[in-house]
Amino acid sequence: MNDTPTSDAVQYERDSRGVITLTMNRPASFNSLSEEMLGALQAALDRVAADEGARVVVLAANGKAFCPGHNLKEMVERPSLDYYRKLFDQCSRMMLSILKLPVPVIARVHGIATAAGCQLVAQCDLAVASGNASFAVSGVNYGLFCSTPSVPLLRNVSPKHAMEMLLTGDFITAQQAAERGLINRAVEPEQLDAEVARLVASILDKPREAVALGKDLFYRQREMGIEAAYQLAGHTMALNMIDTCAQEGFKAFTEKRKPAWKT
Amino acid sequence: MNDTPTSDAVQYERDSRGVITLTMNRPASFNSLSEEMLGALQAALDRVAADEGARVVVLAANGKAFCPGHNLKEMVERPSLDYYRKLFDQCSRMMLSILKLPVPVIARVHGIATAAGCQLVAQCDLAVASGNASFAVSGVNYGLFCSTPSVPLLRNVSPKHAMEMLLTGDFITAQQAAERGLINRAVEPEQLDAEVARLVASILDKPREAVALGKDLFYRQREMGIEAAYQLAGHTMALNMIDTCAQEGFKAFTEKRKPAWKT
Amino acid sequence: MNDTPTSDAVQYERDSRGVITLTMNRPASFNSLSEEMLGALQAALDRVAADEGARVVVLAANGKAFCPGHNLKEMVERPSLDYYRKLFDQCSRMMLSILKLPVPVIARVHGIATAAGCQLVAQCDLAVASGNASFAVSGVNYGLFCSTPSVPLLRNVSPKHAMEMLLTGDFITAQQAAERGLINRAVEPEQLDAEVARLVASILDKPREAVALGKDLFYRQREMGIEAAYQLAGHTMALNMIDTCAQEGFKAFTEKRKPAWKT
Repeated sequence: MNDTPTSDAVQYERDSRGVITLTMNRPASFNSLSEEMLGALQAALDRVAADEGARVVVLAANGKAFCPGHNLKEMVERPSLDYYRKLFDQCSRMMLSILKLPVPVIARVHGIATAAGCQLVAQCDLAVASGNASFAVSGVNYGLFCSTPSVPLLRNVSPKHAMEMLLTGDFITAQQAAERGLINRAVEPEQLDAEVARLVASILDKPREAVALGKDLFYRQREMGIEAAYQLAGHTMALNMIDTCAQEGFKAFTEKRKPAWKT
Repeated sequence: MNDTPTSDAVQYERDSRGVITLTMNRPASFNSLSEEMLGALQAALDRVAADEGARVVVLAANGKAFCPGHNLKEMVERPSLDYYRKLFDQCSRMMLSILKLPVPVIARVHGIATAAGCQLVAQCDLAVASGNASFAVSGVNYGLFCSTPSVPLLRNVSPKHAMEMLLTGDFITAQQAAERGLINRAVEPEQLDAEVARLVASILDKPREAVALGKDLFYRQREMGIEAAYQLAGHTMALNMIDTCAQEGFKAFTEKRKPAWKT
Repeated sequence: MNDTPTSDAVQYERDSRGVITLTMNRPASFNSLSEEMLGALQAALDRVAADEGARVVVLAANGKAFCPGHNLKEMVERPSLDYYRKLFDQCSRMMLSILKLPVPVIARVHGIATAAGCQLVAQCDLAVASGNASFAVSGVNYGLFCSTPSVPLLRNVSPKHAMEMLLTGDFITAQQAAERGLINRAVEPEQLDAEVARLVASILDKPREAVALGKDLFYRQREMGIEAAYQLAGHTMALNMIDTCAQEGFKAFTEKRKPAWKT
């Protein structure tokens, strides 16, 4: 486990069960994805990746907003193609780290999630939002089409809804986000933590190895033709089945008892 | 046509119109996908494939449940990687046979459809469920992530909803399954047969050749870039159009009469 | 800008803002995609492509219907494989021209949109329909499976809903089309023009260059694996950001004023 303290731009809390809560902590800038914030998120995700006892990540935010996307002031001050390339590459690397993490990442969303902040929600494995949250990919309002946010957005919602958000920059409500598949559900603000806790508890109930194998397979098979997808999935499942966790789980099932896993 | 009697694990009924009803018939095990059941389903699908008068398949089940997935007792008794590989390959081959069949397959779902039973529903071309049916991919509850079920599931529902089902193992209702695209619709239990019959009648009204060409094209073009997809679809459609069925259909339309097909 | 007058099968109206309204104008044949209509649509789209001041296209129709698909009478009169191949290739080229256009295309739908008429709606970037519009891919009723319409249909709606429409030829309502992702929304008939105007105004508010870069990226990245998609999107966004429009947009944002674009 990596003990290097991360910047306090992201609060890193880990409980004894392996539940890691990453809280974006720059409320004065509404948690914009400044270079500092991107670096802190990357460091935190790398730390989770190295933690073999990690089980699930909750990605949350302090203050009024979840995340408004990139830090516009920083971007205005460095008008060079080379800088922007590096910035977006850094951001995409962080986003892909969420996908590559062996544990599920749940976005806990309140307030606004716009541009790369909306992308962050789209990129997480699961997302629950407060009913008063709202979502937009609004870079186009400043002349910058949200190209990188379009990558996970289009993999979550239908193309016409994605294109409308990208062209108009308009906000959608948490309820609309749930209906369109961008998030799992919208709940009353006072139910947000309970709903996240419910998902966390459900994931903790399952063995880490099975979840890690499954999450990896899930995103890999998505990019394959269906025959290749079935082949990889079948072989993954056979490896999963021979594992001691599944052997214990199946025995427990046939013996009508709870599996005795060290989860 | 293959006259070899299949195991009575799957009842094979064929009417004079070419409507084939396959009924999973091991209610004592809730129609689990035992080796016997997988073999019987494969034999039945192969028999349909060889039947040039077949027009549509209804996949149904006897007893309280549609299908709870693999037979856990059998799996516990044979703890070898080689066995599991063969088992999942056998299952995937059966699932892909549904996709490759020249006639549409309609799942008629009541009770529970879980794990590979939910996969079976996802893999069918159409699915209608009783309003009291429920769906889950619950292998993860026993330490086995539903990797092969994730293949057709992710091709039917949005990734966040698919991932939630896979990670939590939670059930969704028939109504939720319909809203998310896993099934075509949920109906009152007493309307289930009528709704399936309505779809069957509609398919019988169309020429077998056009349906076979179209179903094959549908799944092929899904895996292509849009330009290649259009090219293949255009050539398929030209071949379809030159066929006597379409020639008769179009003449009938211009003469304002019903097409005189031997459907 | 190309001044060649197009056939009056498609009315070409352009206002000083660069809003181009293409109105299919063969109400007697319900605007069927005859060779004349396909040629007129292609010419109109080519004219938009060559117009550097074009900003957005509205695709509308005169008469009772939006579009019933191909012209069946013409097709019956030319029963040759070679003719059909050329016809579907011509149609697919026109459909792909919508996707390749650097400006967004909004379908304004009233009445019926069937077969290649439904495909036209599916292929547009955005679509708004009157609440009394209806949609079907009904070629199968005449023995011709809607193979080319299935290409954009399956990229808009879930496979089970797409397959049901293709196999049954049944109509869905505008409300169902909206719920399934085929269109952005259904509105009261008397609100149709206002809703289209609202989308047009929103697009006019954004710089043409950013929209063109973004639309192109959107459809390209859809066909890529997620890592390649992120890489292309990041480089596209860096190029967009270094452009004078985004530089002005971001400065305006930090100075709390409206961007001074020549949109």
